[in-house]
Amino acid sequence: MKDVQNFYDERGIALQRVGVKDVHLPFYIKMQNGDFQSVLADICLTVALPHQFKGTHMSRFIEVLNQWSQQPISNKELQSILTDIRDRTGAQKTHIDLKFKYFLKKAAPVSGLSGLLDYDCLFSGELDKDFQFVLGVTIPVTSLCPCSKEISQYGAHNQRSNIKVKVKFRPGYFLWIEELIKIIEVHASSQVYPLLKREDEKFVTESAYDNAKFVEDVIRDLVLTLRAQQKIAWFDIECTNFESIHNHNAYARHSENK
Amino acid sequence: MKDVQNFYDERGIALQRVGVKDVHLPFYIKMQNGDFQSVLADICLTVALPHQFKGTHMSRFIEVLNQWSQQPISNKELQSILTDIRDRTGAQKTHIDLKFKYFLKKAAPVSGLSGLLDYDCLFSGELDKDFQFVLGVTIPVTSLCPCSKEISQYGAHNQRSNIKVKVKFRPGYFLWIEELIKIIEVHASSQVYPLLKREDEKFVTESAYDNAKFVEDVIRDLVLTLRAQQKIAWFDIECTNFESIHNHNAYARHSENK
Amino acid sequence: MKDVQNFYDERGIALQRVGVKDVHLPFYIKMQNGDFQSVLADICLTVALPHQFKGTHMSRFIEVLNQWSQQPISNKELQSILTDIRDRTGAQKTHIDLKFKYFLKKAAPVSGLSGLLDYDCLFSGELDKDFQFVLGVTIPVTSLCPCSKEISQYGAHNQRSNIKVKVKFRPGYFLWIEELIKIIEVHASSQVYPLLKREDEKFVTESAYDNAKFVEDVIRDLVLTLRAQQKIAWFDIECTNFESIHNHNAYARHSENK
Amino acid sequence: MKDVQNFYDERGIALQRVGVKDVHLPFYIKMQNGDFQSVLADICLTVALPHQFKGTHMSRFIEVLNQWSQQPISNKELQSILTDIRDRTGAQKTHIDLKFKYFLKKAAPVSGLSGLLDYDCLFSGELDKDFQFVLGVTIPVTSLCPCSKEISQYGAHNQRSNIKVKVKFRPGYFLWIEELIKIIEVHASSQVYPLLKREDEKFVTESAYDNAKFVEDVIRDLVLTLRAQQKIAWFDIECTNFESIHNHNAYARHSENK
Repeated sequence: MKDVQNFYDERGIALQRVGVKDVHLPFYIKMQNGDFQSVLADICLTVALPHQFKGTHMSRFIEVLNQWSQQPISNKELQSILTDIRDRTGAQKTHIDLKFKYFLKKAAPVSGLSGLLDYDCLFSGELDKDFQFVLGVTIPVTSLCPCSKEISQYGAHNQRSNIKVKVKFRPGYFLWIEELIKIIEVHASSQVYPLLKREDEKFVTESAYDNAKFVEDVIRDLVLTLRAQQKIAWFDIECTNFESIHNHNAYARHSENK
Repeated sequence: MKDVQNFYDERGIALQRVGVKDVHLPFYIKMQNGDFQSVLADICLTVALPHQFKGTHMSRFIEVLNQWSQQPISNKELQSILTDIRDRTGAQKTHIDLKFKYFLKKAAPVSGLSGLLDYDCLFSGELDKDFQFVLGVTIPVTSLCPCSKEISQYGAHNQRSNIKVKVKFRPGYFLWIEELIKIIEVHASSQVYPLLKREDEKFVTESAYDNAKFVEDVIRDLVLTLRAQQKIAWFDIECTNFESIHNHNAYARHSENK
Repeated sequence: MKDVQNFYDERGIALQRVGVKDVHLPFYIKMQNGDFQSVLADICLTVALPHQFKGTHMSRFIEVLNQWSQQPISNKELQSILTDIRDRTGAQKTHIDLKFKYFLKKAAPVSGLSGLLDYDCLFSGELDKDFQFVLGVTIPVTSLCPCSKEISQYGAHNQRSNIKVKVKFRPGYFLWIEELIKIIEVHASSQVYPLLKREDEKFVTESAYDNAKFVEDVIRDLVLTLRAQQKIAWFDIECTNFESIHNHNAYARHSENK
Repeated sequence: MKDVQNFYDERGIALQRVGVKDVHLPFYIKMQNGDFQSVLADICLTVALPHQFKGTHMSRFIEVLNQWSQQPISNKELQSILTDIRDRTGAQKTHIDLKFKYFLKKAAPVSGLSGLLDYDCLFSGELDKDFQFVLGVTIPVTSLCPCSKEISQYGAHNQRSNIKVKVKFRPGYFLWIEELIKIIEVHASSQVYPLLKREDEKFVTESAYDNAKFVEDVIRDLVLTLRAQQKIAWFDIECTNFESIHNHNAYARHSENK
């Protein structure tokens, strides 16, 4: 059988990214407490395609991913996957994105009753001369509007917000997903919780009111926090408020290469 | 050329619904004020397929839809579309769903400044012996939690909610989309608005606080309202609160054939 | 602290469904081979609310779900969850939907090389006087158009399709997800596979061409199959073809209470 | 009433992007034939926030957008919107994204019967010292696999694909959406059409078979085409094949600053 992908391509065009997308596979993530958590990843894996080849062999991408599937995965294994696919395809540059939901036990602030809270996470890796790793987490929080609080006799509009943070680490350093969430979520008007009894609901209601913040305030406090984090070399932060008084959202974004 | 769809089918199975889905086309909707609004519909159009035919001719569905596209459309035209497709396919039963975004000018409660607010709407028609029409609207509103208000010294958690209502009318009657929205949205803790200046924001903040409602309260008040509407023969209502203190939603649903 | 949900409600309206939605939690599913697979469920859990209560205590829903989370779950445990929530809320009727991605190892038809394929599944339970369980699976397949094949000198348009099947079982019977998938997927033009080498690609290309089927053919063959299944009491089947020659989809649906 | 947004901010952090997101409003787009088409835009409008202000006044964003809504819009008007919002907020840098569905009449290749086909489009504008405009279009097409064709005795797997192209123009030049679609869609295995009769279906089936292309081939031919386009200064192209034989997608992407 002819190997069509291997045909010589006359057009002389090297392509930046060729591969597979929307591949779903289970992996394990090592948690900060030493346990392993089973996650279901949505994967995009690509290589740079040299000009001489008509196509890449995409079945090899699926073979590589299936070999690493159902195994523990971290930035180290991501690099191994990229090295593996590079060796099998002869590509100079390879890239992978894994998106997955991650669960953490979170205790209510007063009753101490706990449940699992879900966070959308991203592991992104690029292997060129060096290996570059990006950790991303989307953290649900509460925001309460300082303007609404200031001008109203009572009450203040508040809503669920999403803080989306991506970071690159300085060589040799990293933060656990758990650590990154912890330093981020304290800068909202309130954290959100899976399980709240009445004494907890009173606490989060009053805390949010005591801690009114615009989307701009959340991002600025996060900028200060992330600038101060020695382990972090680069960050990109977004905050989206699903405004309770509108049918549109408030939004802020900021990125810095430290 | 052979007409494969027209082949006799030996399996002897009449199918309930066969057709096209995710067809996008523009239409016009007559507004209550007499104007016409251009809308972009996402359409599902199906027919019951008699047992003797191997398949239906789906290109005819697209021909019919394109003929009616860019024209004003209401329950009457929906019936004509279904009659048209019935005549062309020999089906006994035909069904159509059109989902579209509809815009209404909405003035802020104090400043009176206005902007456009978007509502997701549904026109659903079924032609069997009779023609049956369903009108659906999803209305964004604010909900404020009565428990949080009662137990907290100050503040109360609130959030954007969606009220999804579907109604069938008594023969010879109907309500404009505008009318249906108007009788529904007053039963939330507050309406939402496209454009709010500070005096408006004070008003909606305090109104919502004065008008705390569980998802259950919203649905019960809507049940009373829709039972009292003489023109309405059947309703199905859902309310989803995008809880500001959780990463999950509160939900209630109720349906009645009057 | 006052228990606002427990207040007596004057409106006299019992509500059909009140609860929580879009709750994400991990569970285990027992596989046909005896292993357990970790799945991430998107959950909707509701109760019927008696007329006398102002609201239901939604934190109890989250407590119940967290107690059952990270445990093996099947129709039996679903019934226990619903009994549990019924006992804690005094509701007469309770309902749960769990949607999750399920992975099965699938070997290529010629090379025998295997990888994991993902299926979107549904466990749905309702507890009233009896307990009623629904199993749902969405199965990706290939469909190849008989008309295109018949009228063209060479080639035939084909595409990915989704078959969505829901079944209720006769009392005392059930099918494994694995079994249900197996009896369904053989009725497409071809099955889809995670990993195909060239000899496999030749096989699936030629098989699909040998086995041209309209969306109507797929549904009719499934009707015959599901009617013949003694264990199945009710079924609802949908097939959507993501037409390669259009920007819309072909669709068929059929349901029978046997 | 206090103007909280106007408070002096002590943190000394200028933010890159602050504004509103997921705003839905209707606009008109001038078509190549001189007509105007009503479109529904999903809008993100942001400004850079100087360090001294606690917040931006988001109601002004909605006021500006509502003033321009229901008006014809092109790159020129986009610049005016950005200038307007810059003047009202004192920002140095402003950014807007408008995403909308655009319809074009497309005639079948043999019968000549026409219908409307929908394309997802993007108008993106950034005003800093200069104004920079990006035009984006997603074009549905058919791709047919050269490997499958080569190794199989008959048939070849094919599927719907999306080509997503973004371009910046050289100063003083532009292409109509219609022109951009036209130079792109000819490089797929086949174009897709809203309405195909049997003679058309034969034509597109055979054309696609005659014109087998990997996702890599599509992108390379587009690179050659876009390099040759004098009016285009920069392009970013992606192609996603919704593989008919897999439950994942094939993908390629390439970007060049000419």
